[in-house]
Amino acid sequence: MAEKIYYESFERTEQFMAVAFAAIGVPEEEAKICAAVLIESDKRGIDSHGVGRFKHIYIDRINEGIQHVNTRFEVVREGKTTAVVDGHDGMGHVIGVRSMQMAIDKAKEYGMGMVAVRNSTHYGIAGYYALMAAKAGMIGITGTNARPSIAPTFGVENMLGTNPLTFGMPTDEDFPFVLDCATSITQRGKIEHYERIGKEMPEGWVIDSNGDPVTDPGAAIKGFGSGTCALAPLGGIGEDLAGFKGYGYAAVVEILSAALQAGSFLKTLSGIEKDGSKQPYHLGHFFIAIDVNAFIDVEAFKKTTGDILRQLRASKKAQGQSRIYTAGEKEYLAYLKRSETGIPLNEQVRKSLSDVRDQLSVDFKFAWEK
Amino acid sequence: MAEKIYYESFERTEQFMAVAFAAIGVPEEEAKICAAVLIESDKRGIDSHGVGRFKHIYIDRINEGIQHVNTRFEVVREGKTTAVVDGHDGMGHVIGVRSMQMAIDKAKEYGMGMVAVRNSTHYGIAGYYALMAAKAGMIGITGTNARPSIAPTFGVENMLGTNPLTFGMPTDEDFPFVLDCATSITQRGKIEHYERIGKEMPEGWVIDSNGDPVTDPGAAIKGFGSGTCALAPLGGIGEDLAGFKGYGYAAVVEILSAALQAGSFLKTLSGIEKDGSKQPYHLGHFFIAIDVNAFIDVEAFKKTTGDILRQLRASKKAQGQSRIYTAGEKEYLAYLKRSETGIPLNEQVRKSLSDVRDQLSVDFKFAWEK
Repeated sequence: MAEKIYYESFERTEQFMAVAFAAIGVPEEEAKICAAVLIESDKRGIDSHGVGRFKHIYIDRINEGIQHVNTRFEVVREGKTTAVVDGHDGMGHVIGVRSMQMAIDKAKEYGMGMVAVRNSTHYGIAGYYALMAAKAGMIGITGTNARPSIAPTFGVENMLGTNPLTFGMPTDEDFPFVLDCATSITQRGKIEHYERIGKEMPEGWVIDSNGDPVTDPGAAIKGFGSGTCALAPLGGIGEDLAGFKGYGYAAVVEILSAALQAGSFLKTLSGIEKDGSKQPYHLGHFFIAIDVNAFIDVEAFKKTTGDILRQLRASKKAQGQSRIYTAGEKEYLAYLKRSETGIPLNEQVRKSLSDVRDQLSVDFKFAWEK
Repeated sequence: MAEKIYYESFERTEQFMAVAFAAIGVPEEEAKICAAVLIESDKRGIDSHGVGRFKHIYIDRINEGIQHVNTRFEVVREGKTTAVVDGHDGMGHVIGVRSMQMAIDKAKEYGMGMVAVRNSTHYGIAGYYALMAAKAGMIGITGTNARPSIAPTFGVENMLGTNPLTFGMPTDEDFPFVLDCATSITQRGKIEHYERIGKEMPEGWVIDSNGDPVTDPGAAIKGFGSGTCALAPLGGIGEDLAGFKGYGYAAVVEILSAALQAGSFLKTLSGIEKDGSKQPYHLGHFFIAIDVNAFIDVEAFKKTTGDILRQLRASKKAQGQSRIYTAGEKEYLAYLKRSETGIPLNEQVRKSLSDVRDQLSVDFKFAWEK
């Protein structure tokens, strides 16, 4: 029997998260920022990074003491276009929004800006920050390291995070170009989804400790836990389908997320101390803003970009395919649909939200309780 | 019977190309730049982009009048960290080197620099420009559009170029990190190699006009010519192995190579006029330099980057694999080997070089003629 799904509106879901973040101690204005980043993920149809993670990635980590409600945003070093920020394990969304805003402000003055961050926590969808730049008429680029998941080409050990390398560009269409993707071939959220629906994974997503492909999602999830499975990079296992390229891009993100800011990298991002206890993840991010206006009238840029995207969509389809998408388009379509329906919430997510509410004694009634 | 291979030294091969470029009319100092970029490809073992292309990509195009020996490097617009350059269909290597040098100079002053170029010609390996930045203690990023080759996800029409997205970083090792790769799953040079050795291609490299995989390299090459085959993006055909990510990165490069500089894009880069005659390719490139020193002491950056790369290499190998590489390492190994042997030149390349020599009446004797 299909699981019962209830819907809650964007506004109400965002409001709940903001109130709950504030109740656990996040300063009110910053709680709103965190909620705004998370809800953007749900608006865009990216269920893996939104309200579904509210409890276990944020509230639980705050309760475990490995993420702090008060964000000490320390600018360690600053130049005309550049800055290094230490986030002191505060709220990743707050650190991310303030850092990209710094990059945007610098780009307004100098044409470009870049902020490198160390000691941060999970910053939500990378796309949020790329979107900030696109909305400001800029090109936005961002990435983050993450707990080790990807094995290098010819390797089997999870070394690199899923390390998104994300770009946003303004266009003359109803939605900007946003390529928000991990440099791994897939991510755990998708594998968990395959397990739930009882589907085999394609060969090439996951390898075991011999380097052989794993297609059973349950075995993969178990293997991630025990360290005997790893994700393949974009391009898959070995070199045949150019896995070394995805591995290379994941390494680029790892370097940009650690080497400019003297931050943590690779295995040290596991969130586990040597004695087995939990410790802060000490994540690193980077944020680049490029002011289109420094090169060309922003409307001309938007028109060219729109033309490129329209021509791609209008090109000849493969047999059985009726539509070609461009980056950010499926997310926009999800947004249009969910603007009508609200956000679909399964039982597990609903329970996590009511648990948080009860734990924090927040006065809030969800749609499904009425 | 195996084809006879002769070797010529780096120095002599570079010297020949410089003299021949000068003989066809490229100003002497600029001829040296072009030769230096081309030879770097051969030094790094990238046979697809070096002396093997000297005649048909450069000399022939100059003779056809679609590439000019005198490079008019026009700075159309300039800001503190930014510039737009029109290359007026001059020599791509000269345009590339001058543009990356501008970006580096701006980064020295402001921390970052970016130059967007239109109306250029083939600029050789993207890695050359990323290396320029790395040698200057900077992070280098570059990309270029190219004649249409890649089909978008769910499409079959060659729309996007092989569009490299290339990064270079200084390290504390004997060679920098350089990820120099196309955003297609493979490139034509590799398919031609498979044809020569009579090997089937893996499924996922090339699609026909129905969207079905093509594994016969001869059929693929014929299909590229007639427009009935296209390369798959990094990640392959469809969405199963995340082809939409490679397609997305190819689109990023297409946008950055055209929209900032009011340049040409997609189908207009075919090099063919509507009446079937040849026309300049009008390629676009972009060059980004980020001064490490603006963030952190460059030695600290190099050490962290080196540590990341060493830890990746030292991680557990897949069964049957004895070594894990990092980006730029195989190219460095090729360099070490070829420093001893010189550059291997097959009969076809040797003939192309002696043809150019004879055509331009250059006084030069190759090693194999002695």
